[in-house]
Amino acid sequence: MKLLRVGTAGSERPALLDAEGTLRDLSGVVLDIDGPLLADDAALDRIRAAADAGELPALDETGLRIGPPLARIGKIVCIGLNYHDHARETGAEPPAEPVIFFKAADTVVGPYDTVLVPRESTQTDWEVELAVVIGRTARYLGSHEEALAHVAGYAVAHDVSEREFQLERGGTWDKGKNCETFNPLGPWLVTADEVPDPQALGLRLWVNGELKQNGTTAEQIFGVAEVVRYVSQFMTLYPGDVINTGTPAGVALGAPEPKPFLRAGDVVEVEIEGLGRQRQEFKDA
Amino acid sequence: MKLLRVGTAGSERPALLDAEGTLRDLSGVVLDIDGPLLADDAALDRIRAAADAGELPALDETGLRIGPPLARIGKIVCIGLNYHDHARETGAEPPAEPVIFFKAADTVVGPYDTVLVPRESTQTDWEVELAVVIGRTARYLGSHEEALAHVAGYAVAHDVSEREFQLERGGTWDKGKNCETFNPLGPWLVTADEVPDPQALGLRLWVNGELKQNGTTAEQIFGVAEVVRYVSQFMTLYPGDVINTGTPAGVALGAPEPKPFLRAGDVVEVEIEGLGRQRQEFKDA
Repeated sequence: MKLLRVGTAGSERPALLDAEGTLRDLSGVVLDIDGPLLADDAALDRIRAAADAGELPALDETGLRIGPPLARIGKIVCIGLNYHDHARETGAEPPAEPVIFFKAADTVVGPYDTVLVPRESTQTDWEVELAVVIGRTARYLGSHEEALAHVAGYAVAHDVSEREFQLERGGTWDKGKNCETFNPLGPWLVTADEVPDPQALGLRLWVNGELKQNGTTAEQIFGVAEVVRYVSQFMTLYPGDVINTGTPAGVALGAPEPKPFLRAGDVVEVEIEGLGRQRQEFKDA
Repeated sequence: MKLLRVGTAGSERPALLDAEGTLRDLSGVVLDIDGPLLADDAALDRIRAAADAGELPALDETGLRIGPPLARIGKIVCIGLNYHDHARETGAEPPAEPVIFFKAADTVVGPYDTVLVPRESTQTDWEVELAVVIGRTARYLGSHEEALAHVAGYAVAHDVSEREFQLERGGTWDKGKNCETFNPLGPWLVTADEVPDPQALGLRLWVNGELKQNGTTAEQIFGVAEVVRYVSQFMTLYPGDVINTGTPAGVALGAPEPKPFLRAGDVVEVEIEGLGRQRQEFKDA
């Protein structure tokens, strides 16, 4: 299923994109798309049954905003340098084990919302990423099979990054990853049953119409199952947590000088095969 | 005021510790102690008025658990190496600007709850910290005065840390800071009006009755006002966010070999002048 949330920011209601591409109202079936829903097989079955029975009213899409497809996100665990080609372009050795950093859940915005270039920023950069949404509480998982059983679904994430804040200001990477609006998410949360192989997804990102990233999750150093298993050794993952699994080559940081960092007025489009497409206009904070 | 939350984990109700040391039930006045409450001057005034009028019923403290004093914490921003004496003991240069890392809100437990030593951990360490609780949305603050006006109150935090995960596993510090139960908080949230000088608080920590840390916030490299102002340049702080402002000297990492890292059965007590005292027994995860 393709689950999403529509309406003004902070007042979104749950919706479903059906096989014909029609947006259907889910607010008569579930309260919201969030961790408790994803952990509730019966509720997910009710959505499926209502959709199959044609009981979900179509939504008037005129002027309808698409919000992030997940409410009340717990934490966002991010994996750094997780693509062979991206590690090469940044001059870093491929890591021996996953690099973990964090984004705060309050950085999440909808897939078409404005993204703000922070004040004093000179190195705002883009990163298309496969987001993994957790559906079951995960601690000390023992196998890849078990790890995948804890995944509720997948979504497109844009891990917007300020490189000077991230790398040159004497903190951990978190300092450049948590500016306001820095994590567009969506449009859809695609349930895991519709993503048979998370290691075979094409990822693309355009800046002002020019293709900048064109990768595949096959290039991930640590695949989704290993990432979920690994992270669960260091922290507990809860339903509604998100893991951003890293970005392929093609970011501004990896380009020759002068590096084409983002500025107000730039438009970024972000797409993952089967998971939908985002579009953000950048403005000054 | 000393605000707190009492009851079983996940079902806490709001309470107040009055000037005589009696626990008073606040559930007839406010729903919970959380970000929206802290941003709501009228609600805080209602609590004050009810307390002054002697209208708050006393709670039966028999067997009553004290939970963390803040519900629905947004994010926990942590400042690393923020005491001159702690920077010295770890062999690090005092940072030129604040070092930022993150703890997830789901690591928070009550001040007397069990703390779990992670599986495979050999270097679980302690850190007493002054926690700053945000009461107003803070972005790009311009002065220290403005920064302090965004602080709702203060609490004791125990920033439990796994040093091998933090420093030797190829990620950012977050990898050793986010294990389950790694952030005991409380017992009280003391409103800012009762903490006239956050740079004059004694902090102490004992392991199995032995005093290990005995510092003062006067040793902070970046004081509370500067930390709040600084962090707001990189991310937006919301009511209910917490900043752990760093730890003074005396952690296991800074001790001579063999370093006395924590193991199951150890008992840690943590105290800050005027903010109360914690006590945790450590068990294996």
